[in-house]
Amino acid sequence: MIMKRGFFVCLILFSLLAFPQNDKETIKKIFDTCMTESNSYQMLDYLSNEIGGRLSGSLSAERAVEWSYSELQKIGFDKVWLQEVMVPKWVRGPKEFALIETEPGVTFDVDVCALGGSVATPSVGIKSNVIEVSAFEDLKKLGKKNIDGKIVFFNRPMQANLINTFLSYGEAVDQRLNGAQEAVKYGAIGVIVRSLNLRLDDFPHTGVMSYGSLTQSKKIPAAAISTNSAEKLSRLLKLNPDLKFLLRQQCRTFEDVISNNVIAEIKGSEFPNEIILVGGHLDSWDIGDGAHDDGAGVVQSMDIINIFRKINYVPKRTIRVVLFMNEENGLRGAKKYFEISKQKNLNHVFALESDAGGFSPRGFSFTCNDSNFSKIQSWIKLFEPYLIHSFEKGGSGADISLLATGKNVLAGLRPDSQRYFSYHHAANDKFDAINKRELELGTFAMASIIYLFDKYGIN
Amino acid sequence: MIMKRGFFVCLILFSLLAFPQNDKETIKKIFDTCMTESNSYQMLDYLSNEIGGRLSGSLSAERAVEWSYSELQKIGFDKVWLQEVMVPKWVRGPKEFALIETEPGVTFDVDVCALGGSVATPSVGIKSNVIEVSAFEDLKKLGKKNIDGKIVFFNRPMQANLINTFLSYGEAVDQRLNGAQEAVKYGAIGVIVRSLNLRLDDFPHTGVMSYGSLTQSKKIPAAAISTNSAEKLSRLLKLNPDLKFLLRQQCRTFEDVISNNVIAEIKGSEFPNEIILVGGHLDSWDIGDGAHDDGAGVVQSMDIINIFRKINYVPKRTIRVVLFMNEENGLRGAKKYFEISKQKNLNHVFALESDAGGFSPRGFSFTCNDSNFSKIQSWIKLFEPYLIHSFEKGGSGADISLLATGKNVLAGLRPDSQRYFSYHHAANDKFDAINKRELELGTFAMASIIYLFDKYGIN
Repeated sequence: MIMKRGFFVCLILFSLLAFPQNDKETIKKIFDTCMTESNSYQMLDYLSNEIGGRLSGSLSAERAVEWSYSELQKIGFDKVWLQEVMVPKWVRGPKEFALIETEPGVTFDVDVCALGGSVATPSVGIKSNVIEVSAFEDLKKLGKKNIDGKIVFFNRPMQANLINTFLSYGEAVDQRLNGAQEAVKYGAIGVIVRSLNLRLDDFPHTGVMSYGSLTQSKKIPAAAISTNSAEKLSRLLKLNPDLKFLLRQQCRTFEDVISNNVIAEIKGSEFPNEIILVGGHLDSWDIGDGAHDDGAGVVQSMDIINIFRKINYVPKRTIRVVLFMNEENGLRGAKKYFEISKQKNLNHVFALESDAGGFSPRGFSFTCNDSNFSKIQSWIKLFEPYLIHSFEKGGSGADISLLATGKNVLAGLRPDSQRYFSYHHAANDKFDAINKRELELGTFAMASIIYLFDKYGIN
Repeated sequence: MIMKRGFFVCLILFSLLAFPQNDKETIKKIFDTCMTESNSYQMLDYLSNEIGGRLSGSLSAERAVEWSYSELQKIGFDKVWLQEVMVPKWVRGPKEFALIETEPGVTFDVDVCALGGSVATPSVGIKSNVIEVSAFEDLKKLGKKNIDGKIVFFNRPMQANLINTFLSYGEAVDQRLNGAQEAVKYGAIGVIVRSLNLRLDDFPHTGVMSYGSLTQSKKIPAAAISTNSAEKLSRLLKLNPDLKFLLRQQCRTFEDVISNNVIAEIKGSEFPNEIILVGGHLDSWDIGDGAHDDGAGVVQSMDIINIFRKINYVPKRTIRVVLFMNEENGLRGAKKYFEISKQKNLNHVFALESDAGGFSPRGFSFTCNDSNFSKIQSWIKLFEPYLIHSFEKGGSGADISLLATGKNVLAGLRPDSQRYFSYHHAANDKFDAINKRELELGTFAMASIIYLFDKYGIN
């Protein structure tokens, strides 16, 4: 009798535990496979070292399209295709040059690079006095009389006392984005912007900037200056406010050119019309090899189906990998993808973007309603053993945010952000700054959350 | 009337929230101070770059004692003192040399270094056949007939599929610790051990080894081989099991010498007899500069009082910084400190060790009873905003573990462990592998938990 009761208790316990136990085991299998048989690191090696920096409209960007198309075909999706999109073509030209002249013949080298989208200087460069500011309000206070004919130097550092460095970035990026169009109102002839880097080093960090509605003739050149050089310039300005700054850059904007998003999908076995999207962006800036931004997200997304194959998991929903073109300076790929999806009335139930670097994953940020968030929160315990358990509501990613419907779920992978802005948009965003395990842990986190959404769907 | 009731409700709410709100604010102040005014990074720069690797018994170890003593005095403790301790003195000698010879005249270079405590080879080296094994059981299976006169090559990699890489280390370290004394039982003339590194690279990783009770004449030389070289040797052995391996090393053990723990304390304003200890170990291996192991823990511990001063926090309990000597190859400092503490009947209510690298902190591991652990768990919410919220029961650290009483609380800082064994005990454990923010976040986590233990004591 006792035995029999024990048997029933066991039966009840088993049926109660069956689901979670199963998920726990599957996720452990995904973990083991990612840490021992993933292709993420090898693929990133190729993309970073054989192809390198791949700014929209460049030959390297086209090579990245061809390579990823062919790799995805090898992995064995039901369908792999290119989605045509017109992208901007901005070319940096020869290496930029800049120096500080404190008196005739006494000069100091500084490290600069043109901001993406900037116009060139005249071929001899511009040479002028410099006025240092922290924010746009300073421009207003100083007025045209103090700014006219000068180079404006935006030198507000990223805030160090924020744990999420993306917030520090968000708080400082206005200088880079809109510095030129603001400074020109007061007669500035150029702008140099402190690099968005929390560390002191010699790498200038590029990134997109905008002239707003300025006509061509009103545009002034804009360059980033490394944090060390920014400190040097600031110190020298205190000693000699009349110093001169020389900037020479030969960047140029051409007509838009044709490029492509790269898409691959495997039809769902039960719910083929419910699409789970996973992606990153294929383009990068030109001065590094874009290993963290966003080579990592690209290879992690490409690797998910590899991993599912290895554990013999057959998705119930359609899994679609989208490698977006032109996230960095236009978001044209994201816009095109959204436009076509709308035309075709596609139902993206879940979309996941990895575009925050290949560092140790800490969790995800979700855009979704409360009902879905409750469901997601019940999964946290499955991720806790891997220390990937910071699940929060918030944004997802630039390339997928257009897909929000209020009913579906969007998510962004959230890796540790402490080191990200040491590399972001700079020449040191290179493959050797990638740690294999950290990259693979990201692939694992992504594959696991996709597995759960595939299995349980959304509310 | 409504106003009055509102006033009382406010008063009650205020008194309920006063404590936590206050803690939240204090911890935010500690965070801001650590991220903007800490000295941790500058101190580590000096310890790493000006002093460098500091193996027990070396001149550099003595310079580290002098430097930290003088720095702690500058910070302004009530008392700074040295605690004498005898330590082993093992000297590596000239750079080790090794090669693989597949046939006479056909050789392949490999990267090796002597394990700490190993004997030398004869001055011409040892040259012999190699037998590759994974574990001690293999030795038994192979027996004396297959091992006698050969060099045993321990080549079991660290397990990749463990999220906590210290567990992978624990699972593989027997090869390094006891490989020589096990292999010699079957007539081996030397051992080479695959480096305890999860990455493939060219750095051999040293670390302590033991001959157990072997007499001097029975001891055989033991060296680490880099993971890349281990892979090379293993591949070549498959092609030619008769290849020869040449190892030459000139390390030597001298008589024990005098060294010191460095201790500083500030008397508690209310409970001077309750000691809160914070520490790391001052010694390091000799081939890197020991920035992660354990320069980070040393400077973080030294910086706590700096931080408290800057936020005007006066500790109620005695805060004692202990920089232990000889963690790496003897734990003599820890043993001496424990012995003296016992003699003096000191009451360590809380002890915190940082000896797991200067990476992004993820939480703490605690050795304590359930009652104290419940209390500690109620503090997790204070650390969650900083993503330092993995609080678990488990070990603390090698230098403080002797201080456990069953009633007190011991803790170890737990940084992200993914990169740690890329640097551990190797020539690349250098200051440039430290990220300033990550180091400072560790200081912040430590200062915050010390603040809470100082304020609330233990149960």
